[in-house]
Amino acid sequence: MAKKRVEIVTEILSANDQIALENQARLKQHAIVAVNLMASPGAGKTSLILETAKTLSGRVRLGVIEGDVASTVDADKVAAAGLPVVQINTGGGCHLDAPMVRQALGALPLGEIDVLFIENVGNLICPVAFRLGADLRVMIASVPEGHDKPFKYPGIFTVVDAVVVNKMDLAPYVDFDLDALCRAVRGLNQDAEMFELSCRTGDGVASWAAWLESQWRARRG
Amino acid sequence: MAKKRVEIVTEILSANDQIALENQARLKQHAIVAVNLMASPGAGKTSLILETAKTLSGRVRLGVIEGDVASTVDADKVAAAGLPVVQINTGGGCHLDAPMVRQALGALPLGEIDVLFIENVGNLICPVAFRLGADLRVMIASVPEGHDKPFKYPGIFTVVDAVVVNKMDLAPYVDFDLDALCRAVRGLNQDAEMFELSCRTGDGVASWAAWLESQWRARRG
Repeated sequence: MAKKRVEIVTEILSANDQIALENQARLKQHAIVAVNLMASPGAGKTSLILETAKTLSGRVRLGVIEGDVASTVDADKVAAAGLPVVQINTGGGCHLDAPMVRQALGALPLGEIDVLFIENVGNLICPVAFRLGADLRVMIASVPEGHDKPFKYPGIFTVVDAVVVNKMDLAPYVDFDLDALCRAVRGLNQDAEMFELSCRTGDGVASWAAWLESQWRARRG
Repeated sequence: MAKKRVEIVTEILSANDQIALENQARLKQHAIVAVNLMASPGAGKTSLILETAKTLSGRVRLGVIEGDVASTVDADKVAAAGLPVVQINTGGGCHLDAPMVRQALGALPLGEIDVLFIENVGNLICPVAFRLGADLRVMIASVPEGHDKPFKYPGIFTVVDAVVVNKMDLAPYVDFDLDALCRAVRGLNQDAEMFELSCRTGDGVASWAAWLESQWRARRG
């Protein structure tokens, strides 16, 4: 009797990574730089996208994929600002994955986009494990969340290319130690860029936007 | 040839639920009321526990299980306040589960606890799917996160017994509409108690703590 061979089924994460590579190639074809934007719920992901769009208006054409468990609240805001946007509802899922992004790419005018924001589901943990095909991973740390987050959620701080500290306008009203946050981030990630800003007042948005533009210019090849 | 019967393996969630029931029975034996406390990162879970302990000091004996991806930052604060506490580090996991709580219960002086806070990992999505054996599920919605969270994360708002709106002291400095939040919560959950408070100033903590005490007195049997 011939020995039966056990087939090893490709694990889910690798299947995701394969599609992420395809997404990346497709974005590169269109000279699009994509940003996987991650943060806690309510840290200001959509606000950062909208402020960045205002700041880069006429210089860099933005597009947006909005990821949420439910609703089109964020996509409606982005569409109202005149940006091309697709909403992904995960239907309870705690993160975006590469197949979801692939589907969304098919619904966007890729020829009209320079920088594509992929706003992930509000969650500091699960999105880290799933590559989407983005060129940059950026996280927002929000001032009222406190400066101890790198100790509690080290994974996300380790992998990102930039940490945006949002809601700096609230710093006088909460117990927040910016130096402590910066030291904790540096302990996990020597290379991440750090930007302190307030989407509410607009302070600091220009230097973040300038960095993003420089990343796009350097990568579009 | 006899027909082979396919055995149905108990699904993971049911295995978790079985252990949750065992946890619940063990807590009931000790007349402990347990609270599964859920919220985004930095919404004020540990602060709420510490303020509640101050308010109920001498009336209700609190114990705490601290759930975090990493670190003992929160457990250290709770221990410094003189409460019995056990830290669970999930090592990357995005939620607590019933086996983790079972293990933690073995390390707590159950005879000296009336109300046990189980502080879940900071995450509005994943913890909802895992019963721990708690009597009450409570979530914190933090003012700077905004009032649209029920639309984006409906699952958690649907299952909780109480919504604590924390950081009310920041309301003057952000775009936050308390009425809109309350309407959205009511659309998902007719029965949840709602408490507006500030752990920073202490405003509103007394009525939350009184409700919790009444829940304990009603349930200890």
